[in-house]
Amino acid sequence: MHELVIQTHRREELLDMTAMVQKIVGDAGVENGLAVIFSPHTTLAVTVNENTDQAVRHDILTHLASLVPQSPTFRHQENNSDSHIKVSLVGPSVTLIVSDGDIQLGTWQAIYACEFDGPRTRRVWVQLVG
Amino acid sequence: MHELVIQTHRREELLDMTAMVQKIVGDAGVENGLAVIFSPHTTLAVTVNENTDQAVRHDILTHLASLVPQSPTFRHQENNSDSHIKVSLVGPSVTLIVSDGDIQLGTWQAIYACEFDGPRTRRVWVQLVG
Amino acid sequence: MHELVIQTHRREELLDMTAMVQKIVGDAGVENGLAVIFSPHTTLAVTVNENTDQAVRHDILTHLASLVPQSPTFRHQENNSDSHIKVSLVGPSVTLIVSDGDIQLGTWQAIYACEFDGPRTRRVWVQLVG
Repeated sequence: MHELVIQTHRREELLDMTAMVQKIVGDAGVENGLAVIFSPHTTLAVTVNENTDQAVRHDILTHLASLVPQSPTFRHQENNSDSHIKVSLVGPSVTLIVSDGDIQLGTWQAIYACEFDGPRTRRVWVQLVG
Repeated sequence: MHELVIQTHRREELLDMTAMVQKIVGDAGVENGLAVIFSPHTTLAVTVNENTDQAVRHDILTHLASLVPQSPTFRHQENNSDSHIKVSLVGPSVTLIVSDGDIQLGTWQAIYACEFDGPRTRRVWVQLVG
Repeated sequence: MHELVIQTHRREELLDMTAMVQKIVGDAGVENGLAVIFSPHTTLAVTVNENTDQAVRHDILTHLASLVPQSPTFRHQENNSDSHIKVSLVGPSVTLIVSDGDIQLGTWQAIYACEFDGPRTRRVWVQLVG
């Protein structure tokens, strides 16, 4: 298992991890298999989405915040129930295909850590299966 | 493939399966790889979230119910379209990392079966890849 | 890695890929392992849900459209931010269990490509790990 350490900068942020994951796969020399990118945090999710227009990231975060707002009516007393709920909606991990020694992504795809309760220093785990 | 049988107690419930999954992995003797936890039901999802404060589970279920309420306007006649929709939002499975013979989870993480149309007896499948 | 090419017919559609995926697994002769179904598009998701009553598919798409409507207030100028957001909610892939040479699905489950910005010709990737 490999571990990435990332630093997020805002309460809500999509942070591009594509190059970091590609480096792990390249260094490991796995030719063909899977790469699982897993968040060990309950307020940090992982997704794959648009890699070019930053407006997409803005729209994703803004709309998620409107669907799951911070609210004083939640019972959990840390004022981050919205963050936990978003993680179960977006998911704690993505499973990617490794082929020809590389992560296979579409032309417009990047791998994002989804910070929902930052800024924080976060760990992200990568497991390769050949 | 391994099968867990669980009993849920309410229409909506997050049921902690962590110890059951850990036992399967320990008994199987897989040192390094993946564990996929898969729900073969269309109204039961699987997620990973907060393992300590039960209020988080309450907030997740309550907010999901507000986003996707039971409604007479759905076309499906079994009055559980909300349950099906929630499964596609939360997801039918999680993929976990196995390393050093154990499921790797963060300090605050547990594995939950997400019952959205209970109470029922449910099966959950676990596949280990080494 | 295997590639499916599918043709969608509407802006929003759940297209059943179960038989196509089963054929890939059968032809490959994998007895025991995983099958990852991955969308290389940022406006096409993958899910597993009800295989019989078409009303469920209708209810899923209609409710998702009400939760994430097309809106002129999104910043992304292609008028498909709703599609991108839905992909991060539903997810870009599913991981399925292969056992006894077959994809393991529950009685009522099918594998769907979730078109959120069609109609288009789409590719879907399938990776088998034994």
